Amino acid sequence: MKINGTPYRTIWLAKDGDCVEIIDQTKLPHEFVTITLRSLNDAALAIGDMWVRGAPLIGATAAYGMALATLADASDAALKTAYDTLHATRPTAINLKWALDEMMAVLSPLPVAQRRAAAYSRAAAICDEDSAANAALGEHGAKIIAEIHRKTGKTVNILTHCNAGWLATVDWGTAIAPIYKAFDAGIPVHVWVDETRPRNQGASLTARELNWHGVPHTVIADNTGGHLMQHGMVDLCIVGTDRTTRNGDVCNKIGTYLKALAAKDNNVPFYVGLPSPTIDWNVADGVKEIPIEQRSAREQSHIFGKDESGKVVEVQVTPDGSACINYGFDVTPARLVTGLITERGVCEASPAGLKALFPERA
Amino acid sequence: MKINGTPYRTIWLAKDGDCVEIIDQTKLPHEFVTITLRSLNDAALAIGDMWVRGAPLIGATAAYGMALATLADASDAALKTAYDTLHATRPTAINLKWALDEMMAVLSPLPVAQRRAAAYSRAAAICDEDSAANAALGEHGAKIIAEIHRKTGKTVNILTHCNAGWLATVDWGTAIAPIYKAFDAGIPVHVWVDETRPRNQGASLTARELNWHGVPHTVIADNTGGHLMQHGMVDLCIVGTDRTTRNGDVCNKIGTYLKALAAKDNNVPFYVGLPSPTIDWNVADGVKEIPIEQRSAREQSHIFGKDESGKVVEVQVTPDGSACINYGFDVTPARLVTGLITERGVCEASPAGLKALFPERA
Repeated sequence: MKINGTPYRTIWLAKDGDCVEIIDQTKLPHEFVTITLRSLNDAALAIGDMWVRGAPLIGATAAYGMALATLADASDAALKTAYDTLHATRPTAINLKWALDEMMAVLSPLPVAQRRAAAYSRAAAICDEDSAANAALGEHGAKIIAEIHRKTGKTVNILTHCNAGWLATVDWGTAIAPIYKAFDAGIPVHVWVDETRPRNQGASLTARELNWHGVPHTVIADNTGGHLMQHGMVDLCIVGTDRTTRNGDVCNKIGTYLKALAAKDNNVPFYVGLPSPTIDWNVADGVKEIPIEQRSAREQSHIFGKDESGKVVEVQVTPDGSACINYGFDVTPARLVTGLITERGVCEASPAGLKALFPERA
Repeated sequence: MKINGTPYRTIWLAKDGDCVEIIDQTKLPHEFVTITLRSLNDAALAIGDMWVRGAPLIGATAAYGMALATLADASDAALKTAYDTLHATRPTAINLKWALDEMMAVLSPLPVAQRRAAAYSRAAAICDEDSAANAALGEHGAKIIAEIHRKTGKTVNILTHCNAGWLATVDWGTAIAPIYKAFDAGIPVHVWVDETRPRNQGASLTARELNWHGVPHTVIADNTGGHLMQHGMVDLCIVGTDRTTRNGDVCNKIGTYLKALAAKDNNVPFYVGLPSPTIDWNVADGVKEIPIEQRSAREQSHIFGKDESGKVVEVQVTPDGSACINYGFDVTPARLVTGLITERGVCEASPAGLKALFPERA
C-alpha cells in the first residue's frame, strides 16, 4: 500500500539480490526506518523481537530466513538448524510453520547446489501469493462493506482490533484489506481503531497505515467498543487471526473475544479476515487446544511513546512492586463469528463452512 | 486504609480547622503528595482536574467545597454560586449532586452567621457516613468471597476494573471494600487489576493501594479478562459504579460492560459495590438515559509514566495526525449483573431488588 504516495511492501529483496529489507515496525508510528537482513540470525531476530509481526509477514520473513540461511550453508543439517531456529521464535503463529514446511518441501529434494536459487524463488513466490490472496480477500470483504453502504447510504463505521493491515502481511492486509478495497472504490468508510494494549499495535500500526493511505479513522481505548456498539456507532467489526481452527474458532490478539461478545450482544456483524494458511486443520476446539503465549510482563508495566522533545522513550505505568502478566492472544469461539473472509470467498465459521470453501482439506 | 502501616483517609480537615487536605491522585502511583484546599475554587479544581476522583470522594470533596465557600461568603447567592461551580465539574457523578443537595438542605434554612459551622459539621458527617457505609458494604461483600473460599478451599481470584478502592472514597472503597474485609479476615485473595485505559486508574491507583495494604494482585491489560474467565482463572468480578439506575443498570468506567459480557459468557459472578447515594432513582434505562461524558482526546493519545530517571513524563502513543475519542463511561445492563452489594446488604440488580433494600425510596 502507499506511504505518502509511494507504493511499498513490508518485505522485499535488496538490490544485491541476497539481502532482504524490512520496515522496522518497532519504530512505528513515530519513525520510518528500514532494516537489511543479511543472515538467518537477522531473520530470527526480526521475528522474535517483532521488527516484523503479523502472521502472514512472519511467514514471509521465515521463508526469506531459510533463503538467507542458504547463503552460508545449504546442507541438510544447516536447513534443519534454520528451520528449528526460526520455528522457535513465535510458536503461536501457524503461518510460521506453514512457510517453513513449504520451504523444506521445496529445498530438501534438491541437490545442495540448487537450493539457494530455489529458496529465493520460493520465498519471493510466497510473498507474491500472500499479496494476491489478501487482494482477493479484500475484494470479497469489500462486498460486505458495499452492501451495508447500499442499505444505509451513510459512512460505514468499522471497528478493528490490533493490526491486521498491510503492515501485518506482505501487502493489503487481512482484516484491513476489505477496508482498503472499499475505500479505493469510493465507498465512504471510517475505522474505529482499538489501541490494543499492551503493545499498542492498533494505535501505533493500524492508525499509522490508515493515516498514510488517507483512510478516515479514530483511535479508541480497548474499553470503548462496547459503548460504541450499544449506541449504533459500529456497523461491523473485522479482525484478523493468528490461527483459525477447523471449527472456525479464532485465536487473535488478546481482547478480540471481548469485542466479539459485544458485537453479538448488539447484533453487530463480526467478521474475521484470514488467508487460508492461517487455518490450522489439526485443531478443532480453540479454547481447549491452543496454547496461549505469555510475553514479558514489562510490556504491560512499561509503554513506549514520543516525549515532548520528539524522542521515543519507555515509561513505567504501574507502581514499583506490583506484578503484571501478559497473555498475547485469546480465542473467540466460532459461535460469536458472523463469517470468515478468505481469499476464496466468505463462509460461515463452522466445519461445514470451511469444508465448502476448502474441500481439498476437509 | 493503610499506607505503609499508617492509617489514612483520602480527605481530612487540616489542623487549622478551615482548610482541607487531600492526596493528589494525579501524582500516583509514583509519588505521594498531599494538597491543601483553601477555597471553593481549589475544591472545584480538585474535582475537575481529578486530583480527587471516584464518585464518593467527589461527593465528599464537593461537600467540603461548600464549606470552604462559606469562609469567604455564606450568603444565599454565594451558596448558589458554589453549588453551580461544583456541580459543573463532573456532571456524570450522581454523588456530586447528592452531596451538594445535602449541603444546601442543611445550610439554606439557617441564618447566614450559622452556616459556616454547620457546613463543616455536615461535610465531616458526610465523610464519616461514607466510611461507615463502605465498611458495612465491605462486610456484606466479604461474605460472598468467604463462601467461594469455603467451597473451593483455594485462593479467591477477583477481577476489578478502574479504581473503586479506598482512594475513590473517603475510606475502605466500594468494589474493593469486600476484598479488604476478606483479606483482613485472613481469607486468601488475589486481585486481577484491569489497567483501565485511557487514564490507567487500575494500574496507577488500584495497584498502588493494594500494594500499600499488602493484598496480592496482578495488573493486566483491559483486553485480558475474557481469556482469564474462559480458563477458570477468575472466581468473581467486583466493580464500582458512578451511577446506578433504579432498574439496576450500572454506569461505570468505560469497559465495564465488556467484562460483564465475559462474566456472563463464562458463568462468573459479576457484582457491583455501591453505597446507596450512587443510586439515581430518577433514571430507569441506563443505556438510553444516561449521557456519557466525553473527555479530552489527549488522554487517549498521550500517557503519563515514570521514565528511567524516575521523572514522570507524558508520552504520545498515536501517530501525528490520527484522531482519538475518549468516552469516560459505559452502561452495563442489569441483566449482566449478578448482584448489587450495598451498605444494607446484597440485592438483585432489578427494581424489585433495590425496592426491597430501600423501601423508603420506592
